[in-house]
Amino acid sequence: MKIFRVLKRGYCISYAILDNNVIRLDEDPIKALIRYSENKEVLGDKVVGLNYEELLTKFQIGDLRITKPLDPPEVWGSGISYEMARERYSEENVAKIMGKTIYERVYDAVRPEIFFKATSNRCVGHGEAIVIRSDSEWTLPEPELAVVLDSSGRILGYTIMDDVSARDIEADNPLYLPQSKIYYGSCAFGPFIVTSDEIGNPYNLDITLRIIREGKVFYEGSVNTSKMRRKIEEQIEYLIRDNPIPDGTILTTGTAIVPGRDKGLKHGDVVEISISKIGTLITPVIKSERKLK
Amino acid sequence: MKIFRVLKRGYCISYAILDNNVIRLDEDPIKALIRYSENKEVLGDKVVGLNYEELLTKFQIGDLRITKPLDPPEVWGSGISYEMARERYSEENVAKIMGKTIYERVYDAVRPEIFFKATSNRCVGHGEAIVIRSDSEWTLPEPELAVVLDSSGRILGYTIMDDVSARDIEADNPLYLPQSKIYYGSCAFGPFIVTSDEIGNPYNLDITLRIIREGKVFYEGSVNTSKMRRKIEEQIEYLIRDNPIPDGTILTTGTAIVPGRDKGLKHGDVVEISISKIGTLITPVIKSERKLK
Amino acid sequence: MKIFRVLKRGYCISYAILDNNVIRLDEDPIKALIRYSENKEVLGDKVVGLNYEELLTKFQIGDLRITKPLDPPEVWGSGISYEMARERYSEENVAKIMGKTIYERVYDAVRPEIFFKATSNRCVGHGEAIVIRSDSEWTLPEPELAVVLDSSGRILGYTIMDDVSARDIEADNPLYLPQSKIYYGSCAFGPFIVTSDEIGNPYNLDITLRIIREGKVFYEGSVNTSKMRRKIEEQIEYLIRDNPIPDGTILTTGTAIVPGRDKGLKHGDVVEISISKIGTLITPVIKSERKLK
Amino acid sequence: MKIFRVLKRGYCISYAILDNNVIRLDEDPIKALIRYSENKEVLGDKVVGLNYEELLTKFQIGDLRITKPLDPPEVWGSGISYEMARERYSEENVAKIMGKTIYERVYDAVRPEIFFKATSNRCVGHGEAIVIRSDSEWTLPEPELAVVLDSSGRILGYTIMDDVSARDIEADNPLYLPQSKIYYGSCAFGPFIVTSDEIGNPYNLDITLRIIREGKVFYEGSVNTSKMRRKIEEQIEYLIRDNPIPDGTILTTGTAIVPGRDKGLKHGDVVEISISKIGTLITPVIKSERKLK
Repeated sequence: MKIFRVLKRGYCISYAILDNNVIRLDEDPIKALIRYSENKEVLGDKVVGLNYEELLTKFQIGDLRITKPLDPPEVWGSGISYEMARERYSEENVAKIMGKTIYERVYDAVRPEIFFKATSNRCVGHGEAIVIRSDSEWTLPEPELAVVLDSSGRILGYTIMDDVSARDIEADNPLYLPQSKIYYGSCAFGPFIVTSDEIGNPYNLDITLRIIREGKVFYEGSVNTSKMRRKIEEQIEYLIRDNPIPDGTILTTGTAIVPGRDKGLKHGDVVEISISKIGTLITPVIKSERKLK
Repeated sequence: MKIFRVLKRGYCISYAILDNNVIRLDEDPIKALIRYSENKEVLGDKVVGLNYEELLTKFQIGDLRITKPLDPPEVWGSGISYEMARERYSEENVAKIMGKTIYERVYDAVRPEIFFKATSNRCVGHGEAIVIRSDSEWTLPEPELAVVLDSSGRILGYTIMDDVSARDIEADNPLYLPQSKIYYGSCAFGPFIVTSDEIGNPYNLDITLRIIREGKVFYEGSVNTSKMRRKIEEQIEYLIRDNPIPDGTILTTGTAIVPGRDKGLKHGDVVEISISKIGTLITPVIKSERKLK
Repeated sequence: MKIFRVLKRGYCISYAILDNNVIRLDEDPIKALIRYSENKEVLGDKVVGLNYEELLTKFQIGDLRITKPLDPPEVWGSGISYEMARERYSEENVAKIMGKTIYERVYDAVRPEIFFKATSNRCVGHGEAIVIRSDSEWTLPEPELAVVLDSSGRILGYTIMDDVSARDIEADNPLYLPQSKIYYGSCAFGPFIVTSDEIGNPYNLDITLRIIREGKVFYEGSVNTSKMRRKIEEQIEYLIRDNPIPDGTILTTGTAIVPGRDKGLKHGDVVEISISKIGTLITPVIKSERKLK
Repeated sequence: MKIFRVLKRGYCISYAILDNNVIRLDEDPIKALIRYSENKEVLGDKVVGLNYEELLTKFQIGDLRITKPLDPPEVWGSGISYEMARERYSEENVAKIMGKTIYERVYDAVRPEIFFKATSNRCVGHGEAIVIRSDSEWTLPEPELAVVLDSSGRILGYTIMDDVSARDIEADNPLYLPQSKIYYGSCAFGPFIVTSDEIGNPYNLDITLRIIREGKVFYEGSVNTSKMRRKIEEQIEYLIRDNPIPDGTILTTGTAIVPGRDKGLKHGDVVEISISKIGTLITPVIKSERKLK
């Protein structure tokens, strides 16, 4: 089952794609995902004439607009979860403890990096703009596989997430990580939530990032989730340790595609992230213009 | 005006102390604080016979129990905000960038440290237990002055906050900061929200921390907020930069009282934090016992 | 446009039939009717595979059941609205004022009879049981054309209503009319609300009543609304005079089919009411068994 | 216990008077009445400085206004419940069945008269205006003892009710009773709900009606509830027969004070109704001016 949601004149309406049919859900998509995970029938009507594939490329048709597939009460992130040349984690100016960078230390440690990423109101969906902070000169998309969880940490589905990060702020000091990670428009996900039965093995998915600038591919990179060495279950175990999460919480599982310092986002860019079996998440980029007092 | 709240058989009831009267509020305490900040009359009834001073020491009388003075949609923290011997920030094993610890770097930088601390459900109030994570051996209270903000960053009131932190997890790696800071029972505040007119100068308040173990004072320390060098306004400016916050958000302004490695909290301890003009926040301590799978 | 509603595992879901399509409504059916009456687009999805015609005859398929097409906040009735032989209104034992029965007096008067009939919880829908009061020996169905109104008295749509009445109680004394008219199960309506453009002239509709007993037609009668002499607009004018009604109020416009004293309903009967251009409302009949104290 | 309610800047706030204290209720007044009827503690705070006695005579002080003591989901009425000279019920022009007026018939019958009177939005409270219908020339107040019921018909408390009636419309035809009885401003009650323990014997209360015109007593009449021959329990029994009522439903028990044809209300009059042990309900009178189309 795939879940998506459209916005129509102020009404959020949720759909599932199931056995090649489009089902309009009777319930909140989080409830529908829980029901599906328990092998219960998903309640809804089979609809026709909703051209969601066209919506995916046109973003808005008439009064219909695609939006976030659900409202996650909390979004959490993980990092340093992929196999990478350890050199990548040992650049010159990164914070070090006893000779080892803090990234290397996580890489080698039992405990993963887990951080608070966003609340629902700070997230955007397919076709909606991600944001460069007004005080960042170097902001990167982080294309990631994300999981939707119930309150016990069970995986209800998978989605594409862009964990947009102000890399210059973060690089300046790891204590600035929350400022680089949490702000309006720092988190995009969608266009679908896809359930486990359609995903199969989550460790064999291609993730591709493309940054489009002035109509041309400015950056392209890809990775396969087989390179994830910090498994999702392990991340979840730490996320929920002593930490109650609500149904519908999203955990994004870390990136391995890092465009680099000369590839920072610019106002007007378009970011496209594809993950096999899920689809492509497309978002324009805007630079925040802070109002001076 | 001071605001507090009691729980009675499942009903949360909010009160203000105003001109020596106890007023039962007609509205949500966040609305009452906004109204007061706009010099509008606070709506409510003058009540008698509610012995809140006794409740502060007995915690529960009959079916009445004191609780969090309001439900903050978000709690944020700040750090490295006090003048301290820079040595304190330059211990051996702290992460360093180009020879300077990350704490020293914040100390010297324009940008403050701002982090996401809690949601309302992770917070406790006066008389309610703060928690040591199941996987922490060294957890410390952090006694702090906190401010309640409206969505534009205006200060609606002040309170006492305990930014409980798993210091061993945090010390291991700054990337573990969210795990050391955000979990159930990691945040206590109250017993009152006190408005600016009663606080006067926020930079001349005594903060005292006492840890009571087996009925005796195990640790005592204090500081005056005059030692705060990263001013509250400056912290707020960064908190709300590109980052929308809801009315009633709390920002806790950092600590300067650090009990040290041999003074970590233990199950059964009691933590008392006093701030002049606000009162004393008392919380028992429990150690989480994680259920093994 | 026709509107109907189904109940699925506790969820009420509203549909419209529009241009031969089944539309699942985004909004409450009352809002959809208002929108339609203002020539605005009705919001919803085209669904397939909902066999509502089968539901109309089977009443329940799987977890789907047809129910009241909307929840009317108030239901009002009118009476003595049809042309009938005045003899019908002048039976021996009817209350008389100065030689004329009270029915004749309404018949001849400017002011119509208007009465409070039901609240939503006292109404049932297609396939749901209407009720004979425990203390009535002679209860009759009253098959009527009803209108759904907005708060200004504008007609939003038409439906079939059964204004079930305990005729013996009412005949005993006109002051007992509310007891004969208002009780649980005294009011059935549906299966559709049909808008004015599909109805056309409301004064040329056939109303047919059939009472089925033990599988056979026990009573059958019919009338055409052309016989209505107290026009609907006139009834509405008096209904809303000094009397505010909420959006979605139903007014049922009176009956002219009266089965007679020997044709009273019995537990186990089935009542079928058809009105041209609307459909057929089918309800089983149960006799209330009052619990004696 | 007595219950009253005030309106303060859009907030309805409920109070009880208990053991000479004013208690601000934690709960909806209907819940408080149910709790009290079950000998459970009524939850609330003791307040001081609320001069409700002054409010009763001044109606509004600052932003405080007294209003309906609760929001009854339904109000029902009863009639012909008092012992009266049967002549009163046998006037010339009243509807007769086989020589007996319909009032005489109810008087002599087992079944009482029960009618639907109002919904909460059609009711007003102490100090709020009752209404003469635009199309009535003869409207009378009906001063009555009323009971507040739970959904099983148990009496939760007593109040004063004015069952305002358009007597000319009702006299014209008993089928016009709903129009004479149900319209905006046809029902006033309050200022208190008083519980049974304070009322004692409900059949020994003085009811007094005074109509004040241009500052002088224009009409005065009184009766004692000992003259009620159709007992309240009997009325309730018929009200709830096959007819589900919600908690907080009010039943008003009929009048015996009838000012007469030359004593009809006029715009600008003030109606005062006193019942011993409850208090005095005061309402100004306005004449509705219907907007012509």
